[in-house]
Formats: sequence, C-alpha cells, structure tokens
Amino acid sequence: MGALGEALTAGINVVPFTWAASPAATEREIVVVDWLGKALHLPKSLLFEGGGVTLLGTSSEAILCVLVAARDRKLAEVGEGRVGHLVVYCSDQTHFAFRKAAHVAGIGNENSCAIPAGSQDMYALPPAMLEATMKADAEAGMTPLFLCASIGTAATTAVDSIHELCAVASPHGVWVHVDAAYAGSALICPVFRHLVNGVEDVDSLSMNPHKWLLSNNDCCALWLKQPSALVAALGTDDDVILKDTAATADDGMLVDYKDWQISLTRRFRALKVWLVLRGYGTDGLRDVVRAHVRMAAAFQDMVGADARFEVVAPRVFSLVCFRLRRPTMTTTLPEDNELNRRLLAEVNATGEGPYMSCAVVGGAYVLRFAVGSTLTEERHVRDAWKVVQEHATLILASSMQNMHA
Amino acid sequence: MGALGEALTAGINVVPFTWAASPAATEREIVVVDWLGKALHLPKSLLFEGGGVTLLGTSSEAILCVLVAARDRKLAEVGEGRVGHLVVYCSDQTHFAFRKAAHVAGIGNENSCAIPAGSQDMYALPPAMLEATMKADAEAGMTPLFLCASIGTAATTAVDSIHELCAVASPHGVWVHVDAAYAGSALICPVFRHLVNGVEDVDSLSMNPHKWLLSNNDCCALWLKQPSALVAALGTDDDVILKDTAATADDGMLVDYKDWQISLTRRFRALKVWLVLRGYGTDGLRDVVRAHVRMAAAFQDMVGADARFEVVAPRVFSLVCFRLRRPTMTTTLPEDNELNRRLLAEVNATGEGPYMSCAVVGGAYVLRFAVGSTLTEERHVRDAWKVVQEHATLILASSMQNMHA
Repeated sequence: MGALGEALTAGINVVPFTWAASPAATEREIVVVDWLGKALHLPKSLLFEGGGVTLLGTSSEAILCVLVAARDRKLAEVGEGRVGHLVVYCSDQTHFAFRKAAHVAGIGNENSCAIPAGSQDMYALPPAMLEATMKADAEAGMTPLFLCASIGTAATTAVDSIHELCAVASPHGVWVHVDAAYAGSALICPVFRHLVNGVEDVDSLSMNPHKWLLSNNDCCALWLKQPSALVAALGTDDDVILKDTAATADDGMLVDYKDWQISLTRRFRALKVWLVLRGYGTDGLRDVVRAHVRMAAAFQDMVGADARFEVVAPRVFSLVCFRLRRPTMTTTLPEDNELNRRLLAEVNATGEGPYMSCAVVGGAYVLRFAVGSTLTEERHVRDAWKVVQEHATLILASSMQNMHA
Repeated sequence: MGALGEALTAGINVVPFTWAASPAATEREIVVVDWLGKALHLPKSLLFEGGGVTLLGTSSEAILCVLVAARDRKLAEVGEGRVGHLVVYCSDQTHFAFRKAAHVAGIGNENSCAIPAGSQDMYALPPAMLEATMKADAEAGMTPLFLCASIGTAATTAVDSIHELCAVASPHGVWVHVDAAYAGSALICPVFRHLVNGVEDVDSLSMNPHKWLLSNNDCCALWLKQPSALVAALGTDDDVILKDTAATADDGMLVDYKDWQISLTRRFRALKVWLVLRGYGTDGLRDVVRAHVRMAAAFQDMVGADARFEVVAPRVFSLVCFRLRRPTMTTTLPEDNELNRRLLAEVNATGEGPYMSCAVVGGAYVLRFAVGSTLTEERHVRDAWKVVQEHATLILASSMQNMHA
C-alpha cells in the first residue's frame, strides 16, 4: 500500500511547496497527518486545530526544523548575542540525529549535553539528573534551550518520562521535543497511550510512519504546538518568483509548507499515508502492531527460558535486546562481547535465516531482534530462535575448548 | 522514465545510508552521479576520481550541507569563537535557499551579504563589487567564508562568471559553491560548456536532474572537491547501533552516505537517474535540451517582433522573461506592473492554454515563459504566444479607454 502510494506520487509528480502550487495535496497532507495524530491519541494542542501538522522526510529533518525554531524564538527573547550560551539536552541513548542537528544549527558540541541513562533507569533519561544539570547551567550563566526526549530509544526502545521531564524543563522555558521515530506507531494501541502521559506539555513530537506503520521511506510526521515559531524561523517571502502569487497574498491563512522545512521543494508524501490509513484502517494497523508485539514477547519468553542467555533491557514494543551470559565468572566483558559478536555474525551469515542487528549498551554488546515486517509469522520467530540457539551451542563449545586448551 | 524509476525504488524500498546497508545502491549512486558529471563536462577534481559525488533531495539541502562543511573547516582554522564573524556572499538574484541555509547554519542575517546584480550586469554578480566587499569585510575584522555563485538564477537564468569570482574569492580562502539547479542540465550540450569556465576552481557544484533532465522530484546531484570536509562536518560514529558493523570497520575506504547529508535515512534516487541516462543516452538528453532552447528562442523572436513587448533579460537557456512596454510615457512603473500582472492572470486563467510564472526584477514585474516539458512542441509555443497577444490587445485597449475616460 505504501509502495503503491509512492508509485502514484511519482506518476503525478506534484510539488505541494505552496498552498497555491497544489491546494489538494496541501489540504490532503493536513487532513492525513491530523487523522494520524488522532489515531495516535495525540492531544488537540498538537493537531491542526490547536497547533500544526506536517510530513517531512526524516526525523533528523524534523528535529533540525524545530530546533532552529526554538533557537530563533529563544534568541528573540534573550538577544542574538547569546547564541553561544544556548544549551541543548538529551540522554546518551538519544538518537545521534539530535546532536547532529544541534551541530548543523550552530550549537557547539560543548553546549550539547547528553545525560547518562543507565540500566538502573531502564535506559530512560533520569529527570533528577536533568534538573540538576539545567540548574547548574542556568547558574553558570548559560541558557537552557531545548530537550529532546525519546519514546523508544534507538538501542533498547527505552521510554523517557515525558510528564516528569516537562516539569523539569518548563521553568527554564525549554522547547521539549519528543522523538518517537519508531515507537510512535505503537501509540495507535490504547494500551501504549500511557507511555506519553504528559504529552500535552511538549512543544513538538515526531514519528516515522515508514518505520512501523507500513508507509514507504521517507516519511516523518511532525506535530507541533506553535507552527508560527517554525514559520518565523524557516519562512521567507524573499523569493522573487513566488513573491507575487496568490499563495503569499493570503494574509497567512493558508499553509505554505515550504516555510515549515529546510528545502523549498517537497514530495507529496501524504498520498501513501492516506492509502495506508484508508486501506488498513486504524483497527487494521492496531492488529499489525499488536501481532508484532505479541511475537516479540514470545521471542523474549524463549530467550528467558534458556539459562545461557539474558534479556538485556526490558522489552516494551517489538524489539528484544539479548545476549549470551558470561559462560564462566572468569571471562572478561571484552571476551563476552566477542562471543556475542561472533554469535550475531554467524546468525546473520546463514543468509536464508533471520537478520538481527546489534548495539552497545552500557559497554555490553547486545543482539537486537525486531519484528516489524508485514510478512513475519510466529513460525519465523520460532525458527529464528532455533538458529540463535544452535549457533550459541557451537560457539560456547568451541569457546570452552579454547579455555581448556 | 523518471517516474518508472521512482516506482521501482518504492517497490524495492532500499535505504543506502551506509555502504553495508546496500552496497549495490551505494555503488550505483557513485557510478550514476559520476556519469552525469562527465556528461555535464565537469572536471575530474569534482568527480569521484578526484573529489566526491552524491545525490541529495534538493538544492537547499546540498547548499546547507556544503555550507556546514565550509563553516567547520574555517572554524577549525580560525577558532570556534569566530563563528559570529563569518560572512557569506551571494547576489540579490541568488535563490533564497542560500540565505535560508545560512540562517539555519547559524550565520546571522547581518552576516549574509547579497550583492546587487542589476540589468547593467545582465543580473550576474559583479566580481569587482564582490572584491571590494570582501576586502572591506576582511579589513573590518570579519572572516569571508562562503560564496554561492549561480549558473542560471531563479528569476532570469543569469550566469555568474565563475572564473572571475573564484579569482576574487580564492585569496580569502572562501568556499565557492555553484548553484546550477535548473541550468546545470544545459551543460550536457557542449555549446553551453563555456558558461562554467573556471569550474575547476570551485569547491562544489549542485544541480537538479528533476528540473530539466527528466528525473522525478526530488533529486539533486552534488559534486565536491573535498568530501572529507563534508564527512568531518556531518559524519558521526556516535550511533550505538551502527558503531559495530562492517560499515564502520572499513578504515574510511567505503562511502557511508549518511555522513554526507543532514539525515540518516535516504532514498535510492540513483535508480531513476540511471534509467533516464540509460533510456535516453547523453545524445537523447542533448536533443531534449536543444529542442527546448530552440523553442524558447523562437518564443523570444516572436516577443521581439511585437513592438508592444520587450524582452527583459537576455535569454540564455529555455526561459524568456518579457513584459509589456509602457503604453505611453506618462504611465508609472506601478501602473505598468499592474498591466503585466493582469496580463499574466488572464493568460493563466484560460486554463487549457499556457501556464506562465512571474518575477520582480529590478522593480519591474515580468512574465516568465519556460520550456521544460517533454511533451512541448513548437505549435504549443506558437499558440502560447497567440494567447499572450490576444490578451495584451484587450488589456491595452481597456487601459487606453480608462485613460481617456
């Protein structure tokens, strides 16, 4: 459905950069992202009614856009000369796209603060630590600017506590953005809604329907409270060609999406999301997400039932992070990591079998098993686990042999 | 062919963000952009052999990427603290994407210098003025950073003199980028090659095959001399997931395109360009460009043969800028502009007829007639001119009537 949408989009090749350039595509985009926001249980303040909605290409792009909006809003308040004093915050589990966006926007690396989020916090950003850091920065004469919280971090899908983080950030006038690139899709199921408690207080939230809602790459939905801040930062009526058209003679009542993003040109991404929403329906998409979560839970149970393995971070969505336990108490962490690295390489080398990825979490090398494809069935998950077990047996045997040799 | 490429891309949905994620797509991209560069007669220093090549979405994105690369390279030389002293240059005819990119990258609007390029310079950036401005800035303690030159400006397709501008910029260690978004395609014809004389000296050049080389939106090819500067600015090995994969264990010999752009994810745009290049061949594309230029020249001749009209800027490619002359010596420029505005509105309102755009050049409202579609034939051009003439007759008659009333 997503691919069909892309193919149709290619065929009509419309460029909705101003409302006038394609009223139908612009309005369709508003309606579709609004639908999606409602399906994900987002509050009115982030929907078209109370805020603004758009489709960009990627989360990186969305984060850069809102960061520049926040930067300009803050500088208008504290003065242009303070740009070197702005500080942005995230956890060390936040996707690197955020630090990259801050760098592009001219926030020095030394003003980009990544707060450690360890296993004791289930890899979520600890609000107390954020509070202490922001307080210390403010006392040192710095200006807290922006917080990027995550619903579903990249490595372990950890969930930051939006409510508590907003309570910390709000007194400093900090723009809070929620990066829900992958896990935002899960919010379509009411059972996950509590994970974004407090979302009424955030300034913006982005997620990628191309990750888990069956829409083709690229596709990132962005909802934000104050689109005027975005347009103030990225809008322009400098264009010698557009200047005199109907699109700019609308007294600001119409949405010209060129002013909501980095580029002038843009793709009609709403068509594929519309096809997916109409084709599957909210219930159909819920079924897809639920089935994936159920299969990941089953995989987690299988890992837990094998004493040679441990589940490294608590599974929340459809990703399981696991690794081989230390085979003996005498092996070192680097040796353990090497065993797990070998295990992943051999599992992936089977070719016909499952494909897993890896991450380094708290120094430990972990294997990541994700369910996200429409074609995955329970038997595939069982087979994948069997492949892991077989290779683990071989690796552990040869490892013991080496130790006794 | 471009649309077919998009549809195929959607079907395979591959994401060549690292070499390892899709070696075939990454290598295909290198080969295709290299072919294209050779077809456009670009020098070796900008091709894969001596520089670097990539496909991004838009010119805005390309300009932002190289600007950040230039910024970081310069700051490494002069010190991070000098960021507020960096100055970027363009002409007042340069696409607004450049000033927007500078703003996003944290270059204050007051440090973004647009040099007037008037009719006496055929709307090209006057090198002497740039020289005086850069000299004055350097003497005032500022640091000249970046020049965005244009081959084919947005309003009138004016062509900046690359050779002379590089000679001015080079002593200041300024990064010179050439924005050839639309007119870059014309370089496929040897007859236009002289327009980029001196291109050996630029640091980067971008153009959009989606504008005039039959590739679907979005598609921007970027060639640059020093890709290591781009990777230094936009690259990262912070990713907890990618950190441990083969892609980053290559000693920098492989191209990970995620490090050449703002976003992590990206589309396999090379497929559509490949289909276009293979389907039409260089000769076929030359024929397309030549036919469009010939039709635009014919339109220009028709405008020139009607004394009521004037051609506002010399036509270089396939765009003709024209307007109604003052009907009497007593009308004011705003009145003249209003007549031309009415003319454009009425021509476009015919619906079935031609669609033209407008620009304001040196205060004068001009109509822009562009040939760029594969389906345009000479009879369409003749018909378009007839429509313009008919409406001009009616408008001028009613205007004279009003004056005598």
